[in-house]
Amino acid sequence: MTVFYRLSEIAAQLGGRVLGDTEVRISQIATLETAQPDQISFLTNSKYRAQLAETQAGAVILAEADADATGLPRIISDNPYAYFAKVSALLNPLPEVRPGVHPSAVIGTGAKIDATASIAATAVIGEGTKIGAHSVIGEGCCIGANVVIGSRARLYPRVVIYHDCVIGDNLIAHSGVVIGADGFGIAMDEGRWIKIPQIGRVVIGNDVEVGANTTIDRGALSDTVIEDGVKLDNQIQVAHNVHIGAHTAIAGCVGIAGSTTIGRYCRIGGSAGILGHLQIADHVEIAAFTLIGKSIREAGSYAGIFPFAKAEDWRRNSVHLRHLDDLAGRIKALEKQLESLSAESLKRE
Amino acid sequence: MTVFYRLSEIAAQLGGRVLGDTEVRISQIATLETAQPDQISFLTNSKYRAQLAETQAGAVILAEADADATGLPRIISDNPYAYFAKVSALLNPLPEVRPGVHPSAVIGTGAKIDATASIAATAVIGEGTKIGAHSVIGEGCCIGANVVIGSRARLYPRVVIYHDCVIGDNLIAHSGVVIGADGFGIAMDEGRWIKIPQIGRVVIGNDVEVGANTTIDRGALSDTVIEDGVKLDNQIQVAHNVHIGAHTAIAGCVGIAGSTTIGRYCRIGGSAGILGHLQIADHVEIAAFTLIGKSIREAGSYAGIFPFAKAEDWRRNSVHLRHLDDLAGRIKALEKQLESLSAESLKRE
Amino acid sequence: MTVFYRLSEIAAQLGGRVLGDTEVRISQIATLETAQPDQISFLTNSKYRAQLAETQAGAVILAEADADATGLPRIISDNPYAYFAKVSALLNPLPEVRPGVHPSAVIGTGAKIDATASIAATAVIGEGTKIGAHSVIGEGCCIGANVVIGSRARLYPRVVIYHDCVIGDNLIAHSGVVIGADGFGIAMDEGRWIKIPQIGRVVIGNDVEVGANTTIDRGALSDTVIEDGVKLDNQIQVAHNVHIGAHTAIAGCVGIAGSTTIGRYCRIGGSAGILGHLQIADHVEIAAFTLIGKSIREAGSYAGIFPFAKAEDWRRNSVHLRHLDDLAGRIKALEKQLESLSAESLKRE
Repeated sequence: MTVFYRLSEIAAQLGGRVLGDTEVRISQIATLETAQPDQISFLTNSKYRAQLAETQAGAVILAEADADATGLPRIISDNPYAYFAKVSALLNPLPEVRPGVHPSAVIGTGAKIDATASIAATAVIGEGTKIGAHSVIGEGCCIGANVVIGSRARLYPRVVIYHDCVIGDNLIAHSGVVIGADGFGIAMDEGRWIKIPQIGRVVIGNDVEVGANTTIDRGALSDTVIEDGVKLDNQIQVAHNVHIGAHTAIAGCVGIAGSTTIGRYCRIGGSAGILGHLQIADHVEIAAFTLIGKSIREAGSYAGIFPFAKAEDWRRNSVHLRHLDDLAGRIKALEKQLESLSAESLKRE
Repeated sequence: MTVFYRLSEIAAQLGGRVLGDTEVRISQIATLETAQPDQISFLTNSKYRAQLAETQAGAVILAEADADATGLPRIISDNPYAYFAKVSALLNPLPEVRPGVHPSAVIGTGAKIDATASIAATAVIGEGTKIGAHSVIGEGCCIGANVVIGSRARLYPRVVIYHDCVIGDNLIAHSGVVIGADGFGIAMDEGRWIKIPQIGRVVIGNDVEVGANTTIDRGALSDTVIEDGVKLDNQIQVAHNVHIGAHTAIAGCVGIAGSTTIGRYCRIGGSAGILGHLQIADHVEIAAFTLIGKSIREAGSYAGIFPFAKAEDWRRNSVHLRHLDDLAGRIKALEKQLESLSAESLKRE
Repeated sequence: MTVFYRLSEIAAQLGGRVLGDTEVRISQIATLETAQPDQISFLTNSKYRAQLAETQAGAVILAEADADATGLPRIISDNPYAYFAKVSALLNPLPEVRPGVHPSAVIGTGAKIDATASIAATAVIGEGTKIGAHSVIGEGCCIGANVVIGSRARLYPRVVIYHDCVIGDNLIAHSGVVIGADGFGIAMDEGRWIKIPQIGRVVIGNDVEVGANTTIDRGALSDTVIEDGVKLDNQIQVAHNVHIGAHTAIAGCVGIAGSTTIGRYCRIGGSAGILGHLQIADHVEIAAFTLIGKSIREAGSYAGIFPFAKAEDWRRNSVHLRHLDDLAGRIKALEKQLESLSAESLKRE
């Protein structure tokens, strides 16, 4: 069975202006290069216009500026990339939730699982935990005691959420995610580390996605907070008492140290790091592989990356970094000498 | 039910000198900013003294130097931060262990599980494995064959320990930890990598904590060793045959390559890296985001971080890194020219 | 029971030339330093020749150049390191696979599990999924629907493979691996991120090893591809639509951003990063901790690491990085001034 939509039906659901044959049947979305006649493609950047001539796609999504760049059936949108996302969601709906608790799942005393929710095989739900409507708890997930998960959550297999955490609606958490493990709190006492109990929670808003193997630690005293619409990629580490503002997106392998506050609508590149107890303003963009070592008060783009080179060039150049202060001093000395030499030279004339 | 302690009872258990009302009732610990009258707070740095005037806390933990900085009921301690940790542990005891094996757990032939230990739902214990007194093996944990785990271990859900590993007392391992997976051992043979069997173990001392999703690989031939009191944060990678000295603390996302030995009482910042086959002395402190590329023989603080800046400033400055050797050469040339010019100028006088 | 091989039997199976007592009995492999008389050791680098005099090993594997460096029973090989790997595999065979499905495993409708395969306790196999001959699916693994896994795969406990992924023969996947989670695809739409469905798969060739807690995301539209013989260490992040060429080896904690293509026989050091949409040629070597920010068209070694130093030296030197452009400008100015001063000086003579 192949489901298809006519171009006119897509536009009826998602908006946009249709040009050309409105009745072309679309069953999938694909890139301009690979699309087939029953597939729709998209152009998000005018510089790839040339690909339009070659595409086999049955229809295309375009910006107004490119409306006449092809004769193919097309939908004109203000934001072709977002439109593409919506068409793809329309054509690729998530598998339907099968409500109910698998017989191999283990449900704690007093847990309240909505009748429309799905608890998969070998999942474990803690005592007193609430799972909201239409939520899916995947295979092997372990949800601790007294957790609250809102509606339409989708936890892929083997997610762990520790006790007392609070999760809004529409969470997507991929496999290996750990929410609410203890933060790294230790105090040195006569030659031994002693553990500081981590008694805060993790509190997550609505519409958050968390990538595979990402970890979000519970707070030491107060809570770790992830606001609405935050998107986290894989293998990110969010330490205790971090606060991430709404609609911030963070790429893979980023580490955020304890008690740092990140603003709204920030974008943080892969493998970046942010030290603890810092404030990052709204609308800050941080480049991949950059360590942020002090607070950023102003929106804008920030970076700090060592440029790569052929290994022998890197070696020859980087050795001077150990003597940069000396080099700077020598430049200053040269300037002084030259100044006095020029003065003498002038005198002599 | 709220449990509380009188200030005098806390001091009776944990030491310290009480000033002011010794009978104030304390049920929880909190920061100066958020504490309520039934809560105790703490001042670990005199520079935050001003917060003492504002706090609603019922009592405070202070250093001797700050003993008179408030009139609130207070406990004076040599080490207020460690004292805070101990008070928090007193007020927030771990949930009691419920001894026994959950019916959904799977126990291998010949496994020896202490009668006081707890094996949670869906956990799997390998053949011949020993679990010590009062240890808790969380939901979904998989412990391989012939593993030895000491007493009072607390494994949170979904920890994996591979076969033959040996673990001391009081291990805390958070969810997603993998102990004893194969090290990365491969040999190139006529255009193909062949695998080097990893026949060593992981041997862990007493009082070790391992954060969520941290991995510690088994040794190639001999063992990977983690000594007593080592504290590892989340998402750390410890490669095969690494040896970490007692009481060393390592922050999140650090990677340690194979066969490196790290001393005792080291502190390693987040996302740092240490190459393989190195020796790091005792009491070495390594900054976040620093790569250690050769052995460190001397205690002290080490760093190597590219300073971040506004992206356009970073771009303008960093481009010169590819020409640093040239810049250094031009400074040297200038110095020579200037020297000969000065000599001439002198001659002329 | 100790299994042993005579030196002659080893050479009969693995090749190489035997010198000295061919009948010495070998039961294990060890380093020169730790080997006992019933163990074989190896010398892979002539600079460690001195250790040969001290070793207690019963036999040694050597290169032709070192053939006369010891009187011990020995095997001469073109590639002693690969030979060592093969001897170790001979002496340390994997535990035998026990075919069959554990009663606590949950098998989806229509799954096809080869009769010689082993499905361990609490594993979950999705609907329509195929598991090939002699493959082992470890405890707590979750394999999604319609996955294909070839023969002789060895999945350690708690591996997750999402729906529709295709895996060749001989996969080794360590605990915590997640294959096929959604790539990080989001589009900004009127102040909110909307999710781009990730409808590609992960397709993995033969003879691939994936280290603990490594994540490989499924493609957005087309597939993420890992070719034959690729070896991935722990905690690596492979984003959507990455393509990794055959026999490339990647060390721990590396992050590879979306749609990047890496060539064959590359070697990538620990914690390195590669930005998205890049092309990396065959036989490229990338140093640890290096960010690759543009395509590499030519084989060779590349690096970009900030050299570490004592923290106070690092601070004193690194501050100039924020003024490097200014320093470079001052050098240029000095050169001009000096040139004009020299010209004047010349005129005067």
